[in-house]
Amino acid sequence: MSPETEKLLSALGGRLGAVGVLAGSDVDQRYRDDPDGKLGALPEAVLRPRDTEGVAAALAACNDLGQPVVVQGGRTGLTGAARVQPGEIVLSLERMTGLDAPDRQAASIVAEAGATLQAVQEAADGASLMFGVDMGARGSATVGGNVATNAGGIRVLRYGMYRAQVLGLEAVLADGTVLTSLKGLPKDNSGYDLSQLFIGTEGTLGVVTRAALRLHPKPVSEVNAFCALSSLDAAIALLGLLRQKLGPLLSAYEVNFAPLYDTMVASMDMPAPLPAGSSVYVLAEIQGSEPERDGERFAEVLMQAVEDGVIDDVVVAQSPREVRALWAVREDANRVLFSIKGLVGVDIGIPLARMGIFLREADAAIHAVDPGADIYVFGHLGDGNLHYQVRTVDPAAAYDIVYRGVAAAGGGVSAEHGIGLDKKKWLHLVRSDAEIATMRRRKAALDPRNILNPGRVFDLIPPAFAKS
Amino acid sequence: MSPETEKLLSALGGRLGAVGVLAGSDVDQRYRDDPDGKLGALPEAVLRPRDTEGVAAALAACNDLGQPVVVQGGRTGLTGAARVQPGEIVLSLERMTGLDAPDRQAASIVAEAGATLQAVQEAADGASLMFGVDMGARGSATVGGNVATNAGGIRVLRYGMYRAQVLGLEAVLADGTVLTSLKGLPKDNSGYDLSQLFIGTEGTLGVVTRAALRLHPKPVSEVNAFCALSSLDAAIALLGLLRQKLGPLLSAYEVNFAPLYDTMVASMDMPAPLPAGSSVYVLAEIQGSEPERDGERFAEVLMQAVEDGVIDDVVVAQSPREVRALWAVREDANRVLFSIKGLVGVDIGIPLARMGIFLREADAAIHAVDPGADIYVFGHLGDGNLHYQVRTVDPAAAYDIVYRGVAAAGGGVSAEHGIGLDKKKWLHLVRSDAEIATMRRRKAALDPRNILNPGRVFDLIPPAFAKS
Repeated sequence: MSPETEKLLSALGGRLGAVGVLAGSDVDQRYRDDPDGKLGALPEAVLRPRDTEGVAAALAACNDLGQPVVVQGGRTGLTGAARVQPGEIVLSLERMTGLDAPDRQAASIVAEAGATLQAVQEAADGASLMFGVDMGARGSATVGGNVATNAGGIRVLRYGMYRAQVLGLEAVLADGTVLTSLKGLPKDNSGYDLSQLFIGTEGTLGVVTRAALRLHPKPVSEVNAFCALSSLDAAIALLGLLRQKLGPLLSAYEVNFAPLYDTMVASMDMPAPLPAGSSVYVLAEIQGSEPERDGERFAEVLMQAVEDGVIDDVVVAQSPREVRALWAVREDANRVLFSIKGLVGVDIGIPLARMGIFLREADAAIHAVDPGADIYVFGHLGDGNLHYQVRTVDPAAAYDIVYRGVAAAGGGVSAEHGIGLDKKKWLHLVRSDAEIATMRRRKAALDPRNILNPGRVFDLIPPAFAKS
Repeated sequence: MSPETEKLLSALGGRLGAVGVLAGSDVDQRYRDDPDGKLGALPEAVLRPRDTEGVAAALAACNDLGQPVVVQGGRTGLTGAARVQPGEIVLSLERMTGLDAPDRQAASIVAEAGATLQAVQEAADGASLMFGVDMGARGSATVGGNVATNAGGIRVLRYGMYRAQVLGLEAVLADGTVLTSLKGLPKDNSGYDLSQLFIGTEGTLGVVTRAALRLHPKPVSEVNAFCALSSLDAAIALLGLLRQKLGPLLSAYEVNFAPLYDTMVASMDMPAPLPAGSSVYVLAEIQGSEPERDGERFAEVLMQAVEDGVIDDVVVAQSPREVRALWAVREDANRVLFSIKGLVGVDIGIPLARMGIFLREADAAIHAVDPGADIYVFGHLGDGNLHYQVRTVDPAAAYDIVYRGVAAAGGGVSAEHGIGLDKKKWLHLVRSDAEIATMRRRKAALDPRNILNPGRVFDLIPPAFAKS
């Protein structure tokens, strides 16, 4: 163990308790794992406080010693923000998994940072309420990580990003200062809303310890449909139609472009809802409060779209089991994509008006470099968010083509995954020097010793000025 | 003119153009007016840039000279944030009233900071879309002021606070740095969301110059109802019932407590929708997409509530004219209240579960001090936000009783109006020393010379440390 780590553990003394510190050979491999397979360093120590006071003590000690800290929740991030870098120790929220009982009248719940998304969903459900965020990683992803990345997922078009779910936070600054704002008021302009400091800033400005989260009335009806369409334009037209006719009933609008669906169907271990071969597939979902009526309204709009030639083919789920089955098809994309090694994968946001031209131009440019490249695209079309993957012999060229295309289209290089370590070299394509300099000023003001998730999102010292 | 102002105007040269600067006797009284009648200082100069570059030039010059600046939009704020303090010059956004055409497909619009709320609403309406924020001051309140105060209003329970409408901002920092983020993407985690710096921070961290705002599908149906109820508990029960049965259809839920409604009816220049004499009146509104069905569903729930004894009496609007008439009754509260001089007025957020006991205790404590006090309460019950007014011979005692009661109930001393100059002495009741110190750190990091709206929200130098 390095003298730095020894000094830290001695400074902490017994304040985190016997199970609150892992060091040396007690440090498990899972603290280095990354879901995309990139292995981090093995940390010399893992701090596992069981409450906010423990987090404050841990950070104060690290700050005094200038010890860099990487914060870990469910380790499901896709940009390396939680991947351990040499010299970093881990601060894990894994022992802080408490959940208060939901407040039914206020429609809110207070959760500790280490509680999983699924635990929040289930607690809400048990109180006949619903949490507005959902995603495939629900069983592992945690409240703290979801806040830190301003998580998105499949129901953003109805319920908003994670930011819209946060009624208040408790967080600890780098120097151990605890900021608590957990009143859970839907309307409160009593001074700066400090919670905004921690949402989407990827653990670089503070460590979230608890969150007061908004819950919604539990939908009484839930119906979805799987549609085959001839083009992106048709899918965008259908989105407009569903929004116009169904208003806030529409709760998800997911897309899957050829040839991804065809590849999935070829090896799927469940019946395909529609045959392969179309250009675009859409999963649309509604959530409502009138079971006897909502499905009928949804079906009417879909049938009209078929008659008008917007949709080529459609299946509507008739039961909760069928609803789940269509979602399983949607999530099956990950099975196929995770099985392909070395895939270029990006998470991009693009204005709908420029999505078609972006896709055509990126496709042509990638195939000009590598005629054998395969391009797999799916995502959250209702939010203009695509997950775009390329199997190519020239990954560097593919990243460059896609990100420059995104920037030219007025899009973002990360729609929902964040920047972490892995995307920061492309941040300048979509954010100005003035914006990045302002991010640095915010970081320097709150974490002057740069101990919290250093080097995530941006380098505090611009590379040109860094010591070589 | 003071040497400081002369120096500033000379530094600015002709950069704001001939009509871009008012000085000396050209400065109009309206720059000192405050809607609650408190008169500010007459500023020596008013800077009126017509574009972002002009705002940047103005702020850079002021920052160089350490010249304090108060930012003015529509001057409708109710906490004195725009009230001129001695030595301050005014930066007015009144010439920046431009509005882009709404983007129908993205459902968004880009507006300059000086555009009024009503102009945004009308532009949205012209494109068959809707803006989610509305309030009585719509004709004067501006986009910049609405952003700076994170405006609320009457439809927060459906569409959220102003923060939820902001897809991106352009703003100028104290040193003239321009930050532009107007892509308008619904999902974008490409680095820190710097727009959050400016929402609800009351012009203390930067001057908003443009905003990309979210629009919603225009509701096809709009129905409201005015109900008389016997108690706050009944009004809270009705809110729960409407939420459960109608889900997102419910778009407003306003309350008016006795004796305010009785006082209004006694001098109203329109027919009262229901006779005076009940304890609580509620205006509930729905917005939907099925005209032939929404009103019927709403009426069914209301009739059930009458049968169950939750509602004592109700009128449902049958036409757009009647819908507007009920809203006119709601807005009539301001006519009565603005006519009473020296009223204690606060804008508080309280958890619904503790609202009843807060109201009873505050009423008893105020009447113990002043048995002749009149208490007038109305507000946005669906958001736990009350506007609470007291006519009393002891205003200081009333403020103290109400704000301490709010703090004890876990509420906020400003739900939607902000802190400004007038409420900062109560901020410490609801925010910890650590939170206020963190607000100071943010301010000092971005406006180190403290030129932007100084002394609003908090004093940068805590009073105990200030030079006497």
